[in-house]
Amino acid sequence: MHTYRRKVQYYETDKMGVVHHSNYIRWMEEGRTAFLEDIGLPYQVMEEAGILSPVTGVAVEYKRPLTYGEEAVVETWISAYNGVRLEVKYRILNARSGELAAEAESKHCFMKDGRVCALKRTAPTFHEKLEAACRRDAEERQ
Amino acid sequence: MHTYRRKVQYYETDKMGVVHHSNYIRWMEEGRTAFLEDIGLPYQVMEEAGILSPVTGVAVEYKRPLTYGEEAVVETWISAYNGVRLEVKYRILNARSGELAAEAESKHCFMKDGRVCALKRTAPTFHEKLEAACRRDAEERQ
Amino acid sequence: MHTYRRKVQYYETDKMGVVHHSNYIRWMEEGRTAFLEDIGLPYQVMEEAGILSPVTGVAVEYKRPLTYGEEAVVETWISAYNGVRLEVKYRILNARSGELAAEAESKHCFMKDGRVCALKRTAPTFHEKLEAACRRDAEERQ
Amino acid sequence: MHTYRRKVQYYETDKMGVVHHSNYIRWMEEGRTAFLEDIGLPYQVMEEAGILSPVTGVAVEYKRPLTYGEEAVVETWISAYNGVRLEVKYRILNARSGELAAEAESKHCFMKDGRVCALKRTAPTFHEKLEAACRRDAEERQ
Repeated sequence: MHTYRRKVQYYETDKMGVVHHSNYIRWMEEGRTAFLEDIGLPYQVMEEAGILSPVTGVAVEYKRPLTYGEEAVVETWISAYNGVRLEVKYRILNARSGELAAEAESKHCFMKDGRVCALKRTAPTFHEKLEAACRRDAEERQ
Repeated sequence: MHTYRRKVQYYETDKMGVVHHSNYIRWMEEGRTAFLEDIGLPYQVMEEAGILSPVTGVAVEYKRPLTYGEEAVVETWISAYNGVRLEVKYRILNARSGELAAEAESKHCFMKDGRVCALKRTAPTFHEKLEAACRRDAEERQ
Repeated sequence: MHTYRRKVQYYETDKMGVVHHSNYIRWMEEGRTAFLEDIGLPYQVMEEAGILSPVTGVAVEYKRPLTYGEEAVVETWISAYNGVRLEVKYRILNARSGELAAEAESKHCFMKDGRVCALKRTAPTFHEKLEAACRRDAEERQ
Repeated sequence: MHTYRRKVQYYETDKMGVVHHSNYIRWMEEGRTAFLEDIGLPYQVMEEAGILSPVTGVAVEYKRPLTYGEEAVVETWISAYNGVRLEVKYRILNARSGELAAEAESKHCFMKDGRVCALKRTAPTFHEKLEAACRRDAEERQ
């Protein structure tokens, strides 16, 4: 699991006085970016190798809003990975109180030259890093 | 069902060359706003009456990306409503080809004075409009 | 001059209860996109011809805030164009009251194959359209 | 002068492959937020005291684009302050190369109970902090 911390920005709030719900999708991406960097596989390195990892699905359950002046912690881990499909889970917390702000997940595939590919075959070294992270995350969560 | 049409904006694309996945959450809100207006219950009227309708969950499945120069059609309908909880579904299409870009849903509750409320009791005229729309949408989809 | 109309979206507001100032930059882009389409030079056609038109500067003066439930009118016109540099001006109005919400301008150059170019030489048919629009806008504003 | 560092996020890029120009306005806000915190006057404390500081103008000159995988440094300082109006300047740099990405400024007034106010009279302790920071920034830049 990777822990990423960031302040709520004013431009992320809406007239309800709290963070607009669409921004959690962006924080998930920030958490995922930090996670991939942490396991030695920065997303820009994947892109430079010609591999894209589009988001095929997202789901968020909002628990308690966050607002300006507060800080969010994004916990990110791999919940499933089979060399072709990747599932990432997230818990977003209020950094100070520890209260759960949202639970979320995202699904991803891998593409090369405009076609879906098996990372296992197309980029074995990337595959190994994701697989190792997935295994480590599974052990941690037992 | 309500149909809402809008062009893809350049600022909504990302370096993959297509609409960033977080923007679909915003288009869902646009479709919902247009839907509520269409049934005679603009969201600003609800807010002026002291009622908020926070998003408690979203889920999106991405099918085919849209890009700059294209137009999206957002189809919005109520899939469930019981006076306390509201579920809205969406299909986002490429306006020209008719291809499905995404399927989505959002969940909402209602709040007054900082507390969850039953719209049925708190604002019966609003409740009736949502219930009628829900019934109409259910009939249409049979 | 081109007139473009669009509703304020909830996700564009901030906790001050009005449209966040950064969004005006995006509305300027929407107005510019609609303007270019109107003069027969959609930006995607420029991009397909390998020409980019990056923004080299923006300036906005905010007069009166807009909020959710309101509609904006973006008036867009070319204020200067010499085949190499383009200046676009904007007035953003409250559609209903006609009150001025903001005055703005943006500056642009043109690029091909990663280098700044003179549109006049690189793409004479595009150049003529911009020049004609510039002339027409100048006459209109006299 | 305050120095604030942050990574470029994928959702901030556009199909030109670089950070969309509208996001610099948001980074300026991030830099300003960090600056105010640094001088002991977090913006949320001002808001809690009933004082808003709306943006009355922004201007940005874009020099070199930033992209995903890069980090930005936002240098923020007060360039003018007279108790009623505040001017803030910014330099945005590529953290690694030190190259200038953009130069910018923003203008602000202060409001209480919906009316423009002189911070000097309305909130003297806030005023002193801004004045001291302005003086320090002026000395630093000589």
